[in-house]
Amino acid sequence: MTQYPTIIPVILSGGAGTRLWPISREGHPKPFMKLHDQQSLIEKTYRRALAIAHNQSVLTITKRDYYFACKDELNHASDHKANGFFLLEPFGRNTAPAIALAALYVAEQFGENALMLVLASDHLIQNQLEFNQAVQDASALAQQGYLVTFGIKPTAPETGFGYIEAGSAIGAGFKVQRFVEKPSLEIAKQYLAAGNYSWNSGMFCFSATSLLTEMVLHAPDIFNVAKECYQATQACKNTELFVEFDADSFSRFNDVSIDYALMEKSERVAMIQATFDWSDIGSWDAVAGLLPADSNGNRLNGDIAVLNVNDCFIHSSSRVIGAIGLEHLIVVDTPDALLIANRAQLQDVKHIVTRLKSDGHEAATTHKTVLRPWGSYTVLEEGERFKIKRLQVNSGCSLSLQMHYHRSEHWVVVSGTAKVVLDDREFLLNTNESTFIPAGHRHRLANPGIMNLVMIEVQSGDYVGEDDIVRFEDTYGRV
Amino acid sequence: MTQYPTIIPVILSGGAGTRLWPISREGHPKPFMKLHDQQSLIEKTYRRALAIAHNQSVLTITKRDYYFACKDELNHASDHKANGFFLLEPFGRNTAPAIALAALYVAEQFGENALMLVLASDHLIQNQLEFNQAVQDASALAQQGYLVTFGIKPTAPETGFGYIEAGSAIGAGFKVQRFVEKPSLEIAKQYLAAGNYSWNSGMFCFSATSLLTEMVLHAPDIFNVAKECYQATQACKNTELFVEFDADSFSRFNDVSIDYALMEKSERVAMIQATFDWSDIGSWDAVAGLLPADSNGNRLNGDIAVLNVNDCFIHSSSRVIGAIGLEHLIVVDTPDALLIANRAQLQDVKHIVTRLKSDGHEAATTHKTVLRPWGSYTVLEEGERFKIKRLQVNSGCSLSLQMHYHRSEHWVVVSGTAKVVLDDREFLLNTNESTFIPAGHRHRLANPGIMNLVMIEVQSGDYVGEDDIVRFEDTYGRV
Repeated sequence: MTQYPTIIPVILSGGAGTRLWPISREGHPKPFMKLHDQQSLIEKTYRRALAIAHNQSVLTITKRDYYFACKDELNHASDHKANGFFLLEPFGRNTAPAIALAALYVAEQFGENALMLVLASDHLIQNQLEFNQAVQDASALAQQGYLVTFGIKPTAPETGFGYIEAGSAIGAGFKVQRFVEKPSLEIAKQYLAAGNYSWNSGMFCFSATSLLTEMVLHAPDIFNVAKECYQATQACKNTELFVEFDADSFSRFNDVSIDYALMEKSERVAMIQATFDWSDIGSWDAVAGLLPADSNGNRLNGDIAVLNVNDCFIHSSSRVIGAIGLEHLIVVDTPDALLIANRAQLQDVKHIVTRLKSDGHEAATTHKTVLRPWGSYTVLEEGERFKIKRLQVNSGCSLSLQMHYHRSEHWVVVSGTAKVVLDDREFLLNTNESTFIPAGHRHRLANPGIMNLVMIEVQSGDYVGEDDIVRFEDTYGRV
Repeated sequence: MTQYPTIIPVILSGGAGTRLWPISREGHPKPFMKLHDQQSLIEKTYRRALAIAHNQSVLTITKRDYYFACKDELNHASDHKANGFFLLEPFGRNTAPAIALAALYVAEQFGENALMLVLASDHLIQNQLEFNQAVQDASALAQQGYLVTFGIKPTAPETGFGYIEAGSAIGAGFKVQRFVEKPSLEIAKQYLAAGNYSWNSGMFCFSATSLLTEMVLHAPDIFNVAKECYQATQACKNTELFVEFDADSFSRFNDVSIDYALMEKSERVAMIQATFDWSDIGSWDAVAGLLPADSNGNRLNGDIAVLNVNDCFIHSSSRVIGAIGLEHLIVVDTPDALLIANRAQLQDVKHIVTRLKSDGHEAATTHKTVLRPWGSYTVLEEGERFKIKRLQVNSGCSLSLQMHYHRSEHWVVVSGTAKVVLDDREFLLNTNESTFIPAGHRHRLANPGIMNLVMIEVQSGDYVGEDDIVRFEDTYGRV
């Protein structure tokens, strides 16, 4: 059996991924998007990482808003067996600060010689065996002090990726001659023809100490802010599961990528040419490509009737769609937003999202179903003086002890059992039972059972906005 | 002031109008479709008819399923001032049987010489003054015993309409040389060039006695069945507001149009050339044409962001739509069904509906919001063992006294006041109050107030289908 050195997967879970709107949104970005097999991209990434990390330790660095969602996905991927730890950024500052902080953490917890395998949370790789081999090759070079990147053999003159020019051979890979930022189409064609250029996948393998040493040399400002931030954070509220970085010092980082800050400058950079499949799922075309096409070149997902339709991807979450006389379109339907786009113009999806956002449409940033630490809620309808939600409370979870000034609530349990605290009383509500929470009264909802609790909440009052909430106590630190 | 003879508008409200799916459906067909000004086509038809019928008597012949919807629309159009009467068909049998029965009714109620102005319920005419003039011209000929049709000056070689060839002049119109069924494109082009052909609008003016006399001559089988049916119906349950035709005798009618059964054969047919605008709103293109286009030729209705979109009609009921790189498309979005179709292939919409219907999709025939005699209900969500509805009960209306075997119901009033009967009790529920209706118990919901009642109903149980209902008593004869 192959003996790996200690490898800590470091999952970077950042960007919003507006190119996959309306499924990917700010409140539910691309890593959490489920593919056709109902696994999210980040769940797949965790599975891939855990196949490497034999001690089951996985580090995730993400925005604090996504902490609970990441933790849920890791638990799905590992059946709660992983030793997950989370580094929480107060806001996004690109990859260089994130990787510097992760290296400080890994060096402290696992020793300076521990290897880090840095993976994006929203890439798709399906061939695990080839991936394992590439990581093994990379770790051999990383143990020699190299910062190892994974290059992808280009299949088209893509202008959306950076390129890596391979130099002389070393170990199972190459020294890197140079990194190139996203090129023009003409240049990209030359690279494709030349044969010694690879796409820069944004995945890396290096020891914590190599990374930090090279940073001191080539990106001392980032290294210094990272040190300060790391020290300031020791004093912050942290738990066994996560560290939340000090926002003051974190804000002094520049927004800069690890490629730009370090890889383009370091002379200790090597590359392993990937033999595994790879996609950054960068557009709806990539998602479409995961489904087999029918004889008309269509990929249909949901209740869809087509007539004279060719080369279209149509995805419906719950509605019936009739399509007639269409060609080369992408249609993505969600409960509150719909995208219809020409396949040749998918790069414009992000502009539409920007426009909708500036026009104040909620559907640009949040879904009707909103994830919460305790489960999720879905707004079924909102009208004048009332709002109806379906709440799902996960087994063993509890909402905060709270109170609303302007609305009262009717709760009807449709499956599972709820434990209700109302003022000084505490009682159970079984399936098909209901209760009434008057405005101004303290209350708390919990699911003490082992099955999920599903409850309908009918709110009514002069004001039914989410911000009419006073929290007295919360398991998730939201008081 | 112009003196009209007694003219009884006869509104034919039949067909399903699947060409306007997903807004027009079997359960809510084209006449009830609201245009951009929020008036339905049938409401507009009633308004047009009432401007003619100075005694405010209007006769409607429709399927029994649409009775309440027609009555509501007539009340809207006339502020409850019209003397509406309704002839209810047990099922559809085209226009010849409907008109024969209407003629028998008009002759009986208003005398044999009363004039009938037969109007389709789903056409759009906007120039009321010109329309009034045409009816006055037609009634002059009808008083001389003619069966008068209204011809529309063709603007294109339409193959979806029948044509009328004008003969010699008579009064303000022409004798009809002949009727022609829907022609081929080539023939239609010849008619357009010839200049003496008009589209057959399907609107007519004649006296009840002229119609019946000509029927005896040219369509004696229909006349005879009509007589039998009319007599059999006298014995049926009828009210001051409607007659429901005897189904047994009605079923002996052939499915045949008045044009085919009578107009093509009679020698007493005249035509008034319409000077008013006219549209049968026969496709989404016609609906689109009612909205002004922007500088890119787009007609957008709802929350829609477009980029590089030309010559498209996009209608959204509640969802945000992003559209990129589209041309010549019709997009119609409703809560449970979506149509995306090439403008050049709109005739295929009906095929899509047929397909969806045969695949068992409810959205092919019924809306999420279902009209009821007492108001409407909307299914907000349906899951395993539960269903959530919003009910709107009109002022003064009442649901049936009923019972369900398999479901219990939680009712929460969000606006207005409800009167609840539960077993032997009767009580009021005010806004923000709730009650519980256990399975197996008799109950009734009513709105005794002058404002509409809006209520959320959470059903739960092993089975939540609409057919789990036992009715004990009903205002609308549904027991």
